[in-house]
Amino acid sequence: MSNPTWLSKLETPFLLIDESRFIRNIDRLYNRIGLLGSQIRPHLKTLRSPEAAQYLLKDSSSPATVSTLAEAEGFVKAGYTNILYAVGIAPHKLDRVANLLNKGINIHILLDTPEQALAVAEYAKAHNVIFSVFIEIDCDDHRGGLQPDSDELIKLAKMVDGNGATLTGLLTHAGGSYSCRTGEQLKAAAKTECDAVRQAARRIREAGIACPILSVGSTPTAHYVEDLTGITEVRAGVFSTFDLVMKNVGVCTLDDIAMSVVTTIIGRNKEKGWILIDAGWMAMSRDRGTAEGPIDYGYGQVCNLDGHPYPDLCVSMTNQEHGIIVLPSESSMKTEDFPVGMRLRILPNHACATASMHLQYQVLKQGSSEQETWHRITGW
Amino acid sequence: MSNPTWLSKLETPFLLIDESRFIRNIDRLYNRIGLLGSQIRPHLKTLRSPEAAQYLLKDSSSPATVSTLAEAEGFVKAGYTNILYAVGIAPHKLDRVANLLNKGINIHILLDTPEQALAVAEYAKAHNVIFSVFIEIDCDDHRGGLQPDSDELIKLAKMVDGNGATLTGLLTHAGGSYSCRTGEQLKAAAKTECDAVRQAARRIREAGIACPILSVGSTPTAHYVEDLTGITEVRAGVFSTFDLVMKNVGVCTLDDIAMSVVTTIIGRNKEKGWILIDAGWMAMSRDRGTAEGPIDYGYGQVCNLDGHPYPDLCVSMTNQEHGIIVLPSESSMKTEDFPVGMRLRILPNHACATASMHLQYQVLKQGSSEQETWHRITGW
Repeated sequence: MSNPTWLSKLETPFLLIDESRFIRNIDRLYNRIGLLGSQIRPHLKTLRSPEAAQYLLKDSSSPATVSTLAEAEGFVKAGYTNILYAVGIAPHKLDRVANLLNKGINIHILLDTPEQALAVAEYAKAHNVIFSVFIEIDCDDHRGGLQPDSDELIKLAKMVDGNGATLTGLLTHAGGSYSCRTGEQLKAAAKTECDAVRQAARRIREAGIACPILSVGSTPTAHYVEDLTGITEVRAGVFSTFDLVMKNVGVCTLDDIAMSVVTTIIGRNKEKGWILIDAGWMAMSRDRGTAEGPIDYGYGQVCNLDGHPYPDLCVSMTNQEHGIIVLPSESSMKTEDFPVGMRLRILPNHACATASMHLQYQVLKQGSSEQETWHRITGW
Repeated sequence: MSNPTWLSKLETPFLLIDESRFIRNIDRLYNRIGLLGSQIRPHLKTLRSPEAAQYLLKDSSSPATVSTLAEAEGFVKAGYTNILYAVGIAPHKLDRVANLLNKGINIHILLDTPEQALAVAEYAKAHNVIFSVFIEIDCDDHRGGLQPDSDELIKLAKMVDGNGATLTGLLTHAGGSYSCRTGEQLKAAAKTECDAVRQAARRIREAGIACPILSVGSTPTAHYVEDLTGITEVRAGVFSTFDLVMKNVGVCTLDDIAMSVVTTIIGRNKEKGWILIDAGWMAMSRDRGTAEGPIDYGYGQVCNLDGHPYPDLCVSMTNQEHGIIVLPSESSMKTEDFPVGMRLRILPNHACATASMHLQYQVLKQGSSEQETWHRITGW
């Protein structure tokens, strides 16, 4: 069916979510992980939107992951009650966590140093609360976390559990999987990720601490993991919209990408073969995550307003509010094909980064001419 | 004097403006351009903040530049009346421009194609308004605009002036100056920029069109231009806060940079020599503008909470809400010097991009313990 009129009327640039792709992407991963006997704890940081969360969280106590306390508070306000704040806790943030605990929210925090464990124990004692803690495990040298075979891990688990906190689980994130390029590499990264928390859990449990939840995840490994035995939950965020980085990793196709930025042509230069658009880095973000990939999409893949990609056409350069599409000399498209005022859609390199530039998202629903707007929770 | 207590209390990460540096930077350029016989039309896109604009605009009719109509409308709401929207006009945006014209605002638009001139003429005729138009001149092959010696320029000037519009002026932007590295290169870029609009104006005036305002500008050229004869105004934006890109260009020192992000240490790893902070790319932006420069500052230069830079320490990697500072092996600083909970300040690569990640800015005023907050105009 044809596009609804609002797609051609709304002020540009704006961020568009294709609802049917969004649903398809979610179903794909939820079915996959369900068949492997585990469940998804979706990372809500990509869209930070209560309206979007309705597609990801079955009910109010479904497990969710967030990257800021602002999200935690926002999603609590929207009715959700089981939230993992998956960034190492800063001691001064315990006040806000305790506020949520005191409201009866299952808010879980993350840490990987004795200093944090001590701060948690001291705060808990002083304020008569019990925190729910995950310890971060390092599975691929990529970010924070302790080695699964380290002495520090057991020491930290003992420091945490029973000292103003319950050791609820272990968490790892295979951030290194973003640089995988083959299915075999991704399967191996997924196995390494699971093995790291399994090994860590075995050692902690042998030390007499229950540590019930094992949490792994990254969008690439979630789509390639083959054995989730003992793994309680899988975290993934960008899978719901996908993006060009995930296309380069090999986890999705261009046709799966559910996010684009709608833009208007504001100029063209025949001699240079340039098309200027009103989507600069303010609309696309400065993310150049495809720069190192098999295909460099510049600042995004250019599509027509129906969402069909133009082969080899990307946003080559950006200023704050200008994007420049340089037509390749071998392209069948000419500047004449792109009149001023025409609208285009640009697929993003990195959906999380592009979404972060927008306070709301417009939602295209198949078979509906209604314009729906989702809102983003802002700040920290 | 010591830092006010709010600097250590406010939730992190947050964006900080050092007011005394901000004022010093503004005075420096305003004095310079005043001595050269011209005036500044500040580009307000860096902070998009009415509170910040008070430092840049002497009175309500002082000339200002913006990059979106949302800014134009926001600054009009704040009382300002002379605004150049310096991005090529999309025909559908004329409605919002006309609304401002009808309120008595001196809003100026920019174009460089016959299609835009035609859309302006048609809209003006249909709605009985007269637009104030600038034509964009290309001085360095960097973005939009017409060549100053082109036939198209004279044709376009004739199409614009008197057809629902007044040709108010010519505008060029020496975007290429960002890659200059010496004073001589910057002086040459500034001369080329001025010469381009002078030549274009001479030809248009010979064709009988007044075209009174000649507008040039970029922060680098504004600080190196030597002769502004005939140039009505100079646009610059990032000069008020500066940033590491401008430091690399050679226009400022680290001590001039008036913007930083205050962050908290959330982890550290002695073996790797890593410090983890709660300022990821959500707080710093994805801008890697120093990657190609003489010094690559990663995602930002690390300073202590007083603002003193640590030599050779920068944010090496970022995730959405994590920054990782990798201590160089030769550094005198050790992970022991950076306890969890300690606060740091990070100087940004690109102030416009970093500011765009924040909805408000906290302002440090010398000799004052008061916390002042400036607000950002959002959206398009």
